[in-house]
Amino acid sequence: MLAAAVAWGPGKPLSVEEVEVAPPGRLEVRVKVFVTSICHTDLSAWKGENEQQSKFPRILGHEAAGVVESVGDGVEDLAPGDHVVPIFTGECGACAYCASAKTNLCKTYRINPLKSTMVSDGGTRFSVVDGSGVRRPVYHFLNTSTFAEYTVLDAACTVKINSNASLEKMSLLSCCISTGVGAAWNTANVSKGSTVAVFGLGSVGLAVAEGARIRGASRIIGIDIYPEKYTKGKEMGITDFINSMTCGKPVHEVIREMTDGGVDYSFECTGINDVLREAFVSTHDGWGLTVVLGIHATPKMMPLHPMELFDGRRITGCVFGDFKGKSELPELVTSA
Amino acid sequence: MLAAAVAWGPGKPLSVEEVEVAPPGRLEVRVKVFVTSICHTDLSAWKGENEQQSKFPRILGHEAAGVVESVGDGVEDLAPGDHVVPIFTGECGACAYCASAKTNLCKTYRINPLKSTMVSDGGTRFSVVDGSGVRRPVYHFLNTSTFAEYTVLDAACTVKINSNASLEKMSLLSCCISTGVGAAWNTANVSKGSTVAVFGLGSVGLAVAEGARIRGASRIIGIDIYPEKYTKGKEMGITDFINSMTCGKPVHEVIREMTDGGVDYSFECTGINDVLREAFVSTHDGWGLTVVLGIHATPKMMPLHPMELFDGRRITGCVFGDFKGKSELPELVTSA
Ligand SMILES: [Zn+2]
Ligand SMILES: [Zn+2]
Ligand SMILES: [Zn+2]
Ligand SMILES: [Zn+2]
Repeated sequence: MLAAAVAWGPGKPLSVEEVEVAPPGRLEVRVKVFVTSICHTDLSAWKGENEQQSKFPRILGHEAAGVVESVGDGVEDLAPGDHVVPIFTGECGACAYCASAKTNLCKTYRINPLKSTMVSDGGTRFSVVDGSGVRRPVYHFLNTSTFAEYTVLDAACTVKINSNASLEKMSLLSCCISTGVGAAWNTANVSKGSTVAVFGLGSVGLAVAEGARIRGASRIIGIDIYPEKYTKGKEMGITDFINSMTCGKPVHEVIREMTDGGVDYSFECTGINDVLREAFVSTHDGWGLTVVLGIHATPKMMPLHPMELFDGRRITGCVFGDFKGKSELPELVTSA
Repeated sequence: MLAAAVAWGPGKPLSVEEVEVAPPGRLEVRVKVFVTSICHTDLSAWKGENEQQSKFPRILGHEAAGVVESVGDGVEDLAPGDHVVPIFTGECGACAYCASAKTNLCKTYRINPLKSTMVSDGGTRFSVVDGSGVRRPVYHFLNTSTFAEYTVLDAACTVKINSNASLEKMSLLSCCISTGVGAAWNTANVSKGSTVAVFGLGSVGLAVAEGARIRGASRIIGIDIYPEKYTKGKEMGITDFINSMTCGKPVHEVIREMTDGGVDYSFECTGINDVLREAFVSTHDGWGLTVVLGIHATPKMMPLHPMELFDGRRITGCVFGDFKGKSELPELVTSA
C-alpha cells in the first residue's frame, strides 16, 4: 500500500489515499517518484474544464523524476535502479511518426488528454478502496500520473537519464524546460544574432528565453503584465521588458519600433487569443516565425486573415519542444 | 503613339487607346510586349473590388513576355534586344529581404496592389488624351501593366531569359507557372514518393501538379467541381480526381481514406475559406503542410483553431512560388 494524491472529481480537493499499484504490464515500468511538481495542465484536468476528458478518480501529475523499481515483459532499455523522467508524449521508436524527422508525435504514445488507461491491456495500474468499502480503479493521466509514491509508465514514456544529475532539477526536464528550450532550438531553430519576443514569462517562457540565449540571440524581449517577472527573466537572457498593460499602444508596435520592423521569432506562451495575434504581427515580415506554446480555448478561431500569410510570416505549434523524448533528452542531461 | 488597353473605371470595358509611353527613367527599362495573357488578378483589379486600391485610368496585365527596347540610367544587367518577362514581385538584390534566403519579398519592389506609379520619381510613364481633350496620366498596375504594345518596368521587375525560348510559352513564366511550380519546389519542397492534394485545377493548380510530378510525387490528387479538368490534369500529373460537389462527404475524409491518414502536402488554389480548411485537414497529422495560393477575401479569419497547430499540421502562404525572380527564373528556362 502506497500513498498517492487522488482527485475524486472535478475541483474536489486532492486526497492522499492508500493506493495499490499493480506490477508493470508488458512494455511498462514501475517507477518510484522522488520529485514531482505541478503545472497548469494538471490544474486544467483537475478542474475538469472539459468534462468528457475527465475520468475520476484519477491520479494527476506529469512533471517528475524518479527511479525504476521493476520492469515488465519486453522492456529492454530500462532496468531497476535507472534514474528516469516520465514524458507525457512518448516515443515508441517504431511507428511512421517516430521514423519521421518532422514530428515528435508518436502514433501510440503521443500526448492525449482523453487517455486514462494503459495501452497494453486498456486497464489501470492503480486501485483504491472508496468510501463505501469497494475497491475501484483509479485512472491514469497524460501517460504519467506522478502525484504518487509509485507510478506505472509505458517504457515508451520513460527516459533514462544520467544518474549523477539531481532528480530535483531533472523533474523540470519532463515538461517546461524541454518545451521551452526545444521550442527555441528545434521548432524555431533560433540563430545567432537573431531577435526574439517571448509573450508570457511563466516557466515555459523563461525556458524559451534560456534556449534563445544559449543560441546567441542578440535581443530577447519579454512581454508580461507582471514587471517583477523581468527580474527573474534577466537571469534567463531577457534583455528588454514590455509591460503590455502599461506600454500605451499595441505591443507589436512597440516591438517593431525596437527592432526595425519586428523580431525574427516570437513565442506565444499565454494561451490568450489576442496575445497570439500580437505575437504573430510582432515578427518581421518576410521571415518572421511565431511558435504557439500556450493552451488555447478551442472554440476560438485563429485571429489571422489568410492573406496575412502572404506577408511571409509563419506560425507553427510546438509540443514538448519538438524533442523526441527517448532519443534526445538523455544527451541534454550529460551536456547540461 | 502606341496602343494599349486602358481601363477607365471599375468594370468599364477596356478600350484600346493611343497612349504615349515615356522613355524609361532611372533603373527602368522600356519593353515591347509580344505576348500577354489575362489572369484572375487582372479581373479583380478591373472590377475594382477594393475601391481604395483602384486608380483609373489604368493599364492592367501582368503575365507577358517581350523584348527590351531601351534602358534608363543605371541599368546594367539589361540591354536593348534582350528577351524578358516582367515579374510582379521584383528583386532589387540589395535589401535585407533580397539578402535573406527565407523570402522573395523585396523591400522596394514586392507585389503591391496599392501601387500605381513608378518607384524612381513617383510618376507614371503612360499618358492618354481623355474624352475632353485633356492629356492625363494613366496609372501602372502590379509593377507590370502589360496590356500595352510598350510598357515601362523597373529593371528589378524585369527578368532576362534565354532568347531561344518561345515568348508565347515564356509569358506563363511571369505568373501561373512560376507560382505553381515554385509552390511545389520551393515552398513545400515536395519530395520523391510523397502524396499531394491540389484544391482547384486552374492554371496555378495545374502548375502545382506539374511541379509535384517532376519531383516524383507518388500520388497527386486533384479536387475541383468541374470533372472535365481531370482530362487536362492527367497530362500534368494528376493521378486521382475528387469532385467535391458529388463525392458525398467532406473531401478531407475521402483524401484521408485514400492516403492512409492524409497527404503530405496540400495546395489551396481557390481562395475559398471553406476549401482552405478542407485543404488543411486533408494533410497527415505530424508533418502535413498546406500551402495557400488562393486570394482570399480579407474580412474572413482563418478557419483553424490554434490548438489544431498542435497536431503538427503546418500552413504557409506563397507568393510567386517563393522564386527570387531575377536570380532564379533564368535557369528555369535553360533547363526546361
Ligand atoms: Zn506541464
Ligand atoms: Zn512511435
Ligand atoms: Zn497572375
Ligand atoms: Zn530587394
